[in-house]
Amino acid sequence: MKTNEVNQLLEANLATHLNDLVPKSHELREAYFYACLPAGKLFRPKLAIGVFESGPQKKNVLEALSNPHSGLSYFCSAIEIHHAYTLVHDDLPAMDNDDMRRGKLSTHKKFGQWQAILVGDGLLNISYTLLASIAHPHSTKIIRLAGKMLGPRGLIHGQVLDLSHEMNLSFQQCRETHFNKTARLIQFSLLGAEIIKNKQTPLAKEGKKWLRFGESLGLLFQFLDDLTELSEESLSVHESEINPWISFGEETLRETIKQLDLLTQQKELIQVMALVGYFEKIHQIVINDLETILSHLKKNQDQLGPVITRLNVLGQR
Amino acid sequence: MKTNEVNQLLEANLATHLNDLVPKSHELREAYFYACLPAGKLFRPKLAIGVFESGPQKKNVLEALSNPHSGLSYFCSAIEIHHAYTLVHDDLPAMDNDDMRRGKLSTHKKFGQWQAILVGDGLLNISYTLLASIAHPHSTKIIRLAGKMLGPRGLIHGQVLDLSHEMNLSFQQCRETHFNKTARLIQFSLLGAEIIKNKQTPLAKEGKKWLRFGESLGLLFQFLDDLTELSEESLSVHESEINPWISFGEETLRETIKQLDLLTQQKELIQVMALVGYFEKIHQIVINDLETILSHLKKNQDQLGPVITRLNVLGQR
Repeated sequence: MKTNEVNQLLEANLATHLNDLVPKSHELREAYFYACLPAGKLFRPKLAIGVFESGPQKKNVLEALSNPHSGLSYFCSAIEIHHAYTLVHDDLPAMDNDDMRRGKLSTHKKFGQWQAILVGDGLLNISYTLLASIAHPHSTKIIRLAGKMLGPRGLIHGQVLDLSHEMNLSFQQCRETHFNKTARLIQFSLLGAEIIKNKQTPLAKEGKKWLRFGESLGLLFQFLDDLTELSEESLSVHESEINPWISFGEETLRETIKQLDLLTQQKELIQVMALVGYFEKIHQIVINDLETILSHLKKNQDQLGPVITRLNVLGQR
Repeated sequence: MKTNEVNQLLEANLATHLNDLVPKSHELREAYFYACLPAGKLFRPKLAIGVFESGPQKKNVLEALSNPHSGLSYFCSAIEIHHAYTLVHDDLPAMDNDDMRRGKLSTHKKFGQWQAILVGDGLLNISYTLLASIAHPHSTKIIRLAGKMLGPRGLIHGQVLDLSHEMNLSFQQCRETHFNKTARLIQFSLLGAEIIKNKQTPLAKEGKKWLRFGESLGLLFQFLDDLTELSEESLSVHESEINPWISFGEETLRETIKQLDLLTQQKELIQVMALVGYFEKIHQIVINDLETILSHLKKNQDQLGPVITRLNVLGQR
């Protein structure tokens, strides 16, 4: 995958799809684009692309993305726009109350609160509309999967556990929060891409493989993120309280090692991750700021050793 | 249609569908039910039912509704739950800031703001999930229609025009607001039911008929509602300012007469309306409180005569 070309195509398709579905002339048109572009890391579409070009039945990604009306193009925009709607609503004052997002003002700070609520609602509608635009014998199956994995029992349940602070009560609840809030959309990105690639619903074995991979990845995405946050010299009381490496040290360590092992067992799948350069970045931060991290954890290097060993493998290429 | 039986089936199906898709044990489970049940007038599902049992190809509604997994059952729940999500978000402090809804506390007043934002998002996901559960050769077409008619260019655009107060600037903008905010979901309810009934996308002629009917009905729904609000002895300055019968008297009168005429021309379709007893209620209020209404309008009875004549026909059965 040529990263620059893929980035450009993904962003161009996002703009095309938004242009097709947001008001043509109203001033709120700008807010819909603002919430989605310039895009972030495009992590989820890139996972879908990784699945699309992996394995014996691999497909030509650049060809697929060059047509904004291909199944892959619609799917990539749908998952990125779904992600964008969750961010717009998460940033609202009644939710996380964040003023900044991706280095610029959050949508409600820039356009106002009711505008951000409606832009989020609008993007959610667009996400499903794009999924329904995929010409595929099982496109309704993909949409029902979205509803199950991203709706009240999935992603949204994760948001609920987060905002209710239930995630801070025990390691199990912390894990359940990340599983729902982060891993479910990652699983959907992988599984949906597999269905689109094969023009059929995935075989039980394939499906389970992606679900397992998505779960590991989603959990690691959060736990490693929390670990790199300890690279800051000083942490506020609040930051310490909600960091699972501090609140649930041993359990977080064990779970992280377990998920890293599950990931590294699946060599083929790690190629997908290489695309987004995720582990390289994490590896670098952990190595560079190891002393600070250890001081927050009140651990010596040996205790974090199993994580570092595994990041050495995943993060060096 | 036996109203009591239909009401019971619609509510039972709503409960079944929510039960299938909201968290099994979390305390927010109650909030999803609270936002949808007990149901309101079930106006939109009843319109869909009216279409389903109208015309030469009419279907047995009670049979269809007795199975929660029939296309009609899924569709009726989807449109009612879509309606419910818009109400939950509309009531939020940053939107209309309403404390009460259907004679009880609005969802955010009862459960909190972030809870209401997420319940609204959850219901929107459920609405699309239910549409994707309809076993029908053109179910993705129905979902794309939903996206177009209820998304950023449709229902949500109406909410934007309302909250930005653009709807108060001219009669045209007032009409455009009601068309998007109210008529689009009504049109979708009619058109979707027609597609489900015939196991195919509606012929151009049938489709246009329902779109026209839905537009008239949606506009009348608002303009007649605004008219009955003038039955209150005293109106606040704000209530006067936003009432189109006061701000845009002549244009509102002409448009209402025009839409009433379009409706009455379609005898077959009025049967659909009879189901929900809508015009009976409006007719009664207008007749009972005519003097108060006229005093607000600074009109004599002759000038409102054309509306009353038509309501006499539609509202007496």
